[in-house]
Amino acid sequence: MSSRYLEDWTEGEVFETRGLSMTESAIHDFAFRYDPQPMHVDMAFAEDGEFGGLIASGFHTLSLAFRSFLDTGYFLHSNIIGLGLDGLRWTAPVRPGDTLRCRVEVAEVRPSGSKPDRGIVRLAFTVLNQDDTPVMSFSSASMVRRRPEDGG
Amino acid sequence: MSSRYLEDWTEGEVFETRGLSMTESAIHDFAFRYDPQPMHVDMAFAEDGEFGGLIASGFHTLSLAFRSFLDTGYFLHSNIIGLGLDGLRWTAPVRPGDTLRCRVEVAEVRPSGSKPDRGIVRLAFTVLNQDDTPVMSFSSASMVRRRPEDGG
Repeated sequence: MSSRYLEDWTEGEVFETRGLSMTESAIHDFAFRYDPQPMHVDMAFAEDGEFGGLIASGFHTLSLAFRSFLDTGYFLHSNIIGLGLDGLRWTAPVRPGDTLRCRVEVAEVRPSGSKPDRGIVRLAFTVLNQDDTPVMSFSSASMVRRRPEDGG
Repeated sequence: MSSRYLEDWTEGEVFETRGLSMTESAIHDFAFRYDPQPMHVDMAFAEDGEFGGLIASGFHTLSLAFRSFLDTGYFLHSNIIGLGLDGLRWTAPVRPGDTLRCRVEVAEVRPSGSKPDRGIVRLAFTVLNQDDTPVMSFSSASMVRRRPEDGG
């Protein structure tokens, strides 16, 4: 649970993050503010809708998945900033009571060409529910510090 | 402010969404739950850090931008589900007091090959702040209903 600096990431490594559960009230609260579409906030509509009940906003699923990753502590002192996300796909509905975790593969570790104190770490996320069904996948690119000279 | 069904979207059309502001407390609250990295929740760290003050989580910026889009009402009765996002880039920091809006271009409208009642709408988002600085860009793909036979 300590920070990983640029040189601590190894391409090809795979790890899993902690589980975090989606509750009905969390789904409704997030969506009521950021994604108030009927399938996320209207329980009567959702019961009769495409998915047979309320489902989580995809932006909520993304945010919760990233929180689960942050809880590894790997980025606490090392991450400078997120640069972007690629190829994000929502592949199965997330329902109240589902527990999500991430399988993360270190896709690329690249020192900066211009700034010697940093580099880019690209991670490939697969978000799984309690039945190991993939509900979302994406890759992230982050600007990460090298270990400080004093040992960090 | 009424729903746009598949046949109501025109490739190449550009529109802008309403402005929504980021407050310091909203930045802190979102990040405290979903993205508790120091640049989003630790004001003392952030003052001395890369960005000279607290900045919003990129996931928060994304969620707020999508809320601004939803407030057009275009998706209210027509959107079946979001499929994915591509090429998301965070291009400038978002700070307390910034007001964000989206410039949206209709990139693609494609009827489903298998289901005659729906199709895919791809939208290219540029999120701008009050100074017209682009802070984020991405494209979205959504499964959208055709107008129901009774006129919707």
